Amino acid sequence: MINDKKEDFFENVRLTEKEDSVVILDQTELPNKEMYSELKGIDDFYRAISALQVRGAPAIGICAGFAMAVEAKRLSLIPNLSEEKFFEEIHKAKCYLDSARPTAVNLSRMTDRVEKTALMNAGKGLSEIAGICIRESRLIQSEDSEMCSKIAEYGLSLVKSGDGILTHCNAGPLATSRYGTGLGSLFLGKERGYEFHVYSDETRPLMQGARLTSYELNRAGIDVTVICDNMASIVMKQGKINACFVGCDRVAANGDTANKVGTSGVAVLAKHYGIPFYVFCPSSTIDFDCPTGEDIVIEERGEEEISALYFEKPIVPIGVKCYNPAFDVTDGELITAIVTEKGICRAPYKESLCKLFGK
Amino acid sequence: MINDKKEDFFENVRLTEKEDSVVILDQTELPNKEMYSELKGIDDFYRAISALQVRGAPAIGICAGFAMAVEAKRLSLIPNLSEEKFFEEIHKAKCYLDSARPTAVNLSRMTDRVEKTALMNAGKGLSEIAGICIRESRLIQSEDSEMCSKIAEYGLSLVKSGDGILTHCNAGPLATSRYGTGLGSLFLGKERGYEFHVYSDETRPLMQGARLTSYELNRAGIDVTVICDNMASIVMKQGKINACFVGCDRVAANGDTANKVGTSGVAVLAKHYGIPFYVFCPSSTIDFDCPTGEDIVIEERGEEEISALYFEKPIVPIGVKCYNPAFDVTDGELITAIVTEKGICRAPYKESLCKLFGK
Repeated sequence: MINDKKEDFFENVRLTEKEDSVVILDQTELPNKEMYSELKGIDDFYRAISALQVRGAPAIGICAGFAMAVEAKRLSLIPNLSEEKFFEEIHKAKCYLDSARPTAVNLSRMTDRVEKTALMNAGKGLSEIAGICIRESRLIQSEDSEMCSKIAEYGLSLVKSGDGILTHCNAGPLATSRYGTGLGSLFLGKERGYEFHVYSDETRPLMQGARLTSYELNRAGIDVTVICDNMASIVMKQGKINACFVGCDRVAANGDTANKVGTSGVAVLAKHYGIPFYVFCPSSTIDFDCPTGEDIVIEERGEEEISALYFEKPIVPIGVKCYNPAFDVTDGELITAIVTEKGICRAPYKESLCKLFGK
Repeated sequence: MINDKKEDFFENVRLTEKEDSVVILDQTELPNKEMYSELKGIDDFYRAISALQVRGAPAIGICAGFAMAVEAKRLSLIPNLSEEKFFEEIHKAKCYLDSARPTAVNLSRMTDRVEKTALMNAGKGLSEIAGICIRESRLIQSEDSEMCSKIAEYGLSLVKSGDGILTHCNAGPLATSRYGTGLGSLFLGKERGYEFHVYSDETRPLMQGARLTSYELNRAGIDVTVICDNMASIVMKQGKINACFVGCDRVAANGDTANKVGTSGVAVLAKHYGIPFYVFCPSSTIDFDCPTGEDIVIEERGEEEISALYFEKPIVPIGVKCYNPAFDVTDGELITAIVTEKGICRAPYKESLCKLFGK
């Protein structure tokens, strides 16, 4: 455990100088403890990912890329290990890591990327291959960071200093790399002297807004107030909100957007009160093969997340059902703009997304 | 403690046969324990009301009415007590009870009613005066019960068996007498063989929907599912909801309605998805002296209700603000109908409410 890494906050997943381990901020301990953990062996990485100590699709991908690189380096130091055996072990590590969060597509995409890079360099000797893996894993992180910066820059053009911003769930640096997506413009704005007043929906049932978003913003010195999800309407009505900023899990070709459950409700309220509603979206999240939101399957999670998790005593009577969809779909027509690292799209999204991404 | 009173559930505040005590269902123990408490002395009543063991404006009024009657009976049995001393003690009891929940207008209104009834019968002897107080307090309860029945009957005409109903907070029998207001139609419908599928918003931060509404409905054998407040949008979009039923704390002359925070958000969603939104309202809640919702002051409550209450550990980082308005105002234009014990009003409410109540 390393507990004096405040300066590395935004690098919430960090390859150490020796390149043989990774330090992560343990998100399961937030907001009560700021606890850093060092991950060395592949088992450490598996546990950290499966236990949600690292969460957020891009952050998981970054961590898994580093895991592969650290494992490659460890294998390269074993005397007389054959390349054949090396690649066998690397593949085993990849399969094992992928099983830590089977539905997180970024995870297998990034382990795949490091494994393929290694394979493309077969024959160069283990030491060089390991070095190439390290470089590739660093590239994954820096690409994500660059993508977040660009999204933040575009997003910042949509607001002005003094604005009230409502956000739902967590699309900040904890889930990505530096800046984050949905919150990136707020951090970038802060660096440039903008004053924002952020209202963070607590985001039941898992409380990402209360636990994580407010933590990130507060730590960066940005004015943040936590509200219960059902208070979004009153703060909008009171004129406290100038724009809504949310991330996304998947965007269909027509702009329909799946994100944390409750996002669609915020969008309906924003439309009613005449407030712009912005979705922040890395281009990797746009699924051109998915025509509309109707084609997005919504994951349903356990009832105990609503009835018992985080509570001192069960909060729902025993025998009463709970319904716990993890996501919902916001119709494209409710979205003022989709902000990507390549630029800002506006309705009709079927045309604007295709045009921006040359499809 | 009396724990075998299942049959008395809807009489959640019940004068005992001897008329010298009251049995209440302790709402602070719900949903984990169904605990009944017997209240005898005026201190017991004070504690039960101030500690929210009895809550809901009408239920508090009923309990306070009984408290006054039980106290009158106790005083009437003191040998040689003068009428002057009797009325002095009755007034002391009233003032003490009123201070248990200073903002609950029903409380002082009902203690007042019993005290005035007693005073109007001065000279008749303590025993007869005490008997009159008992009758008056029973009348308070039966009037409330009759009012609830009428509201339930009108409400039932707005829905059909098989309907999905979304409700927010708790406007059931626990807060009133038999039936309740916002939930009354569901209990009455159940008695007549209607099958409803109720979705109960958990209602953060105090969880009245998760703890109380789901408890009442489930106990009556009505199909109920708890959802987080931010899931109202997805269940409406999925076609699961045919109508929204909510109670109210205060209705302005133009139909603007103050109710538990989040109600206005449900109304906006209902309008967006084309679902009727009904407010259930005892006529005593309509404030003809209050022209619009703008004139209703919203009570702001403690931050710890959001950040700490019910949780095992604080859920919001220390130092982060929470904003906790207890109510919000739903614009009359978002309300499909206001259901009272005298009939159903529709927009424009300024005219329809005046007409129905002869103002």
